[in-house]
Amino acid sequence: MASVRIREAEEGDCGDILRLIRELAEYEKLLDQVKISEDALRIDGFGENPFYHCVIAEILPAQDEPQGLHVVGYGLYYFTYSTWKGRNVYLEDIYVMPEYRGQGIGSKIIKKVAEVALDKGCSQLRLAVLDWNKKAMDLYKALGAQDLTEAEGWHSFRFEGEAMRKLAGR
Amino acid sequence: MASVRIREAEEGDCGDILRLIRELAEYEKLLDQVKISEDALRIDGFGENPFYHCVIAEILPAQDEPQGLHVVGYGLYYFTYSTWKGRNVYLEDIYVMPEYRGQGIGSKIIKKVAEVALDKGCSQLRLAVLDWNKKAMDLYKALGAQDLTEAEGWHSFRFEGEAMRKLAGR
Repeated sequence: MASVRIREAEEGDCGDILRLIRELAEYEKLLDQVKISEDALRIDGFGENPFYHCVIAEILPAQDEPQGLHVVGYGLYYFTYSTWKGRNVYLEDIYVMPEYRGQGIGSKIIKKVAEVALDKGCSQLRLAVLDWNKKAMDLYKALGAQDLTEAEGWHSFRFEGEAMRKLAGR
Repeated sequence: MASVRIREAEEGDCGDILRLIRELAEYEKLLDQVKISEDALRIDGFGENPFYHCVIAEILPAQDEPQGLHVVGYGLYYFTYSTWKGRNVYLEDIYVMPEYRGQGIGSKIIKKVAEVALDKGCSQLRLAVLDWNKKAMDLYKALGAQDLTEAEGWHSFRFEGEAMRKLAGR
């Protein structure tokens, strides 16, 4: 029986991370939205002042199995900041390949991110969920999260492309 | 007539930034929620791998006026990451002292943050607004932002305190 290891990603994992990012987008029928490259993931996650961090789940096959390590899930996060309470962590993506679901790998990934967050002195872990994804919403609520959009009325706003350039006066 | 200068904050501005953070919270009658200290702001914003960045607005008095520089507004932001499009910026707080409103200082602060974001290769500027704050919502929409909670149904979730420790198994 193969076992699962959760660890912090290294630069050499960027190819696998990109494969899973694309797989998640394909599942959502939004693959054309993925503009990121493996190079960008390397530069942005593994230079000085990284823009993100990542935890991966990999399968360690039993000794008699031929295949090597295989990355089957990831959690991509970054540090944010509350002017009331200081350091926070934000879980941008969490994904497990469909054939490896139901084994608690997703929970292990989110647990690892929560551990890193506490070690770094963060007081909150935040994430965003689409309102039609009741299964995910119920899971996070069951794990103790609060829906801030429902409870406090927070709306998420975005400036992008032309709107952002206009804002900067360019 | 005093003029306004917008610039990136320095470590020595942390006292002023905390004063404005507390002023904003007091205005919202939530001052007891502010647990942050000037020391935490120094360590978290001005060390290696800073957790946040900040832009401030300061009044430069005319030569015949006695008072020195005076910080009257701030915009606190950090970098986030999209696995589809890469680097983003998130504007956590934007505040201008009531007596200095109506002079376009808030717009200048958000413009400065958008400039920094573009210079850093960010493709999005995001922020969150409470649903009762129609004035702010209308302003951001007029400036070209999209309400993602309304348009796509994104809900913001938070794990905090006991829920976060439980998640980390502590």
